[in-house]
Amino acid sequence: MNIRLNIAGTQSFVDRAMLNELSEKAVIANRALCEGTGKGSDFLGWLTLPSTLDKTELLKLNEVGQRLRANSDVVVAIGIGGSYLGARAVKEALSPFFKRSYNADAPCPELIFAGHHLDGDYLCEMLEHFDGKRVSCIVVSKSGTTTEPAVAFRIVKRYIESHSGDDAKHRIVAVTDAERGALRSMAAREGFDTFAIPDNVGGRFSLFTPAGLLPLAVAGLNVEELLRGAADVEKLSTPDAAFEQNICAQYAAARNALYKSGKKIEILANYNPRLHFVAEWWKQLFGESEGKENKGIFPAGVDFTSDLHSLGQYIQEGERTLFETVLSVDKQRRTLEIPADDKDLDSLNYLAGKRIDEVNRQAAEGTLLAHIDGGVPNIRVEIPELNEYCIGQLVYFFEKSCGISGYLLDVNPFDQPGVEAYKRNMFALLGKPGFEAEGAKLKNRLAAL
Amino acid sequence: MNIRLNIAGTQSFVDRAMLNELSEKAVIANRALCEGTGKGSDFLGWLTLPSTLDKTELLKLNEVGQRLRANSDVVVAIGIGGSYLGARAVKEALSPFFKRSYNADAPCPELIFAGHHLDGDYLCEMLEHFDGKRVSCIVVSKSGTTTEPAVAFRIVKRYIESHSGDDAKHRIVAVTDAERGALRSMAAREGFDTFAIPDNVGGRFSLFTPAGLLPLAVAGLNVEELLRGAADVEKLSTPDAAFEQNICAQYAAARNALYKSGKKIEILANYNPRLHFVAEWWKQLFGESEGKENKGIFPAGVDFTSDLHSLGQYIQEGERTLFETVLSVDKQRRTLEIPADDKDLDSLNYLAGKRIDEVNRQAAEGTLLAHIDGGVPNIRVEIPELNEYCIGQLVYFFEKSCGISGYLLDVNPFDQPGVEAYKRNMFALLGKPGFEAEGAKLKNRLAAL
Repeated sequence: MNIRLNIAGTQSFVDRAMLNELSEKAVIANRALCEGTGKGSDFLGWLTLPSTLDKTELLKLNEVGQRLRANSDVVVAIGIGGSYLGARAVKEALSPFFKRSYNADAPCPELIFAGHHLDGDYLCEMLEHFDGKRVSCIVVSKSGTTTEPAVAFRIVKRYIESHSGDDAKHRIVAVTDAERGALRSMAAREGFDTFAIPDNVGGRFSLFTPAGLLPLAVAGLNVEELLRGAADVEKLSTPDAAFEQNICAQYAAARNALYKSGKKIEILANYNPRLHFVAEWWKQLFGESEGKENKGIFPAGVDFTSDLHSLGQYIQEGERTLFETVLSVDKQRRTLEIPADDKDLDSLNYLAGKRIDEVNRQAAEGTLLAHIDGGVPNIRVEIPELNEYCIGQLVYFFEKSCGISGYLLDVNPFDQPGVEAYKRNMFALLGKPGFEAEGAKLKNRLAAL
Repeated sequence: MNIRLNIAGTQSFVDRAMLNELSEKAVIANRALCEGTGKGSDFLGWLTLPSTLDKTELLKLNEVGQRLRANSDVVVAIGIGGSYLGARAVKEALSPFFKRSYNADAPCPELIFAGHHLDGDYLCEMLEHFDGKRVSCIVVSKSGTTTEPAVAFRIVKRYIESHSGDDAKHRIVAVTDAERGALRSMAAREGFDTFAIPDNVGGRFSLFTPAGLLPLAVAGLNVEELLRGAADVEKLSTPDAAFEQNICAQYAAARNALYKSGKKIEILANYNPRLHFVAEWWKQLFGESEGKENKGIFPAGVDFTSDLHSLGQYIQEGERTLFETVLSVDKQRRTLEIPADDKDLDSLNYLAGKRIDEVNRQAAEGTLLAHIDGGVPNIRVEIPELNEYCIGQLVYFFEKSCGISGYLLDVNPFDQPGVEAYKRNMFALLGKPGFEAEGAKLKNRLAAL
């Protein structure tokens, strides 16, 4: 039950010789990545997380997760960027639409995300929503001083402390740097349970650390299965793996060949709305890894068939500078047949007895051909079903592909120098000590705009 | 209390003479639009909807909305594309995060959207979720035969009929063509209440018809205020309006000047996650209106500050082919101050006593300058607050801008020829009568991919 990659839909759009050259380079890049000889090699800890995660750590993670499930009505997961999107993506991909968990036998608290923006109304309304509920929180931050999560944590911590008294410290769990930083110090002082994010794992590659795994354990998901899926893709893409066996190298080569052929936008499409946040996570993974030095593919996401009635027109006939990577799911959890209707006023009887997921599949295949005919190259990622094992594969597949792809683009895929620019300005405008002089200059510029 | 546009952040990126020329053309395009002398002029009914909506129709709309609010626990709004996104966008922009309505005095059923995709699990789980609840539905479809909403409607209608007996017809409301089509016939035969979508209003411009207004009335929103806001922008952009007074012409001219200067992607950014679906609606409005004849700006959306920790890196330092249009909200509903903390372990005490929305504003202003410095032109749309009146202004502002912008691009902004391509293939693959020969050909092509 492996995810599958199909790049046949790119063939008529890329030069064969260029693709061959990139294929060879992708094999070399994969080796450089595995052996730590490429750019940013001090941030490669994520490569072996699936196969090396400590059993004791995993046991503790499941225990703490279980405790929060049992003693909480609401668990707030506080984090931003990589400390938010990975957990959110997997949680949404594997949770029911209209209830909290598919597992009716175990208690499942409501999982609320916070600290991922600065909307004051959101935090106010969240505090009101807490009313009468047993609240716990997981705060994920390497430093503990990133503004958005730090603000949310200050507010949630205060709430928990004022409502739970001595029990508060059993309701707050910190996922942070192993030794340094504000959150590590605070946790030691206050006696919170803690988990470490390894030094050599960057935020957007941290899903298989407790940053991603702890909120998922609280949501009742099987983190061992997630890791097992990831480990199986880790095994596929060893340093010596041939191009033909390494779907990560194939995806990286294909998308770079398209980029060099003038396809500047990649649209990650799904036909299952549960995968919406997988695209959000993927946009960070690729956008933040590759969008630098005035280059990189612009990552966008669409939810089909919904967006066939929105961006579909652009994709079919707009500027011919985009390509699609389509996630499709072989098997849904449930089967629902379209019923027959005597009167057939809606003319749907030709579908009577067909399952809705079959109709969805034909929509996907029809769209694939329509878009290729319209000049949109197509890459397919086929997922056997939406479960922990397959999603673990998918996440590691994209992570590994992203590392290889960044090397093909000749950037350091593991830094994010541009993220500091807005923070510096924000600190200056907010009068943070040390930034005062800069603040006055910025205010003058704003007044002139 | 008007929305405001500021295009000062584009000045250093566009040639002054080109902008002047486009400004003059925008005034002419605005006139052509108002007078019906441009492309697609048989689809201009939306222009005057805010000022001309029939009072009797509005009364009936509020009555039916009130009935559904009173007799339902769940109301399913069925539709796709323009029959979904407008209602969804306004509903999310004006609803609380953790409860159904800000109005504690009136009953508010749960509003569920369906028929906007083909995920079978979603429909299965929705049916289970109905259990024990009083269910009603609003089905929005001009023809009644669009696959996604027709499938969902067949299933929901069956559920309601089998659970409500003779009461079913009071629980189903159809918004459809005034005279023709499958849904109109069915409604007449079964005695459903109906509302009409005028012939000369296309889906993505239909928010101010019952297609958008009825679900919003059910959600407890004040549709009169929404229309009043829209009507006030309608008045601003009369045929004779000067460029300086017409924010719609200004936005259209600025974005086309940027497009001609090589900025091929427009990112609509918000700092309030409630506006997420306004960007989804906007992506359809502009993408479907302009993405044709191998041209058009590619529309993308981001939720800040969240996505400053995701796409932020790309925006700051990736390919310099994008610009931003930023929605900001002057005033939040609630004020929440960041509390002081004696220990200040998170180093946030410099923010103590500041409101979170002030911090959000400084993040926005800091980002504005950082992105301009990074080579990203900036357009600002400032919204006094998130209420019906201001959102009505915003929606009409974007609609009118879009019509003008399409004329500047020299396309017909009111058709969507590319949306048919996937549908034809899907019908063929599904064996719809009349498409059999085509189906066999497509299956052969798929087998070869």
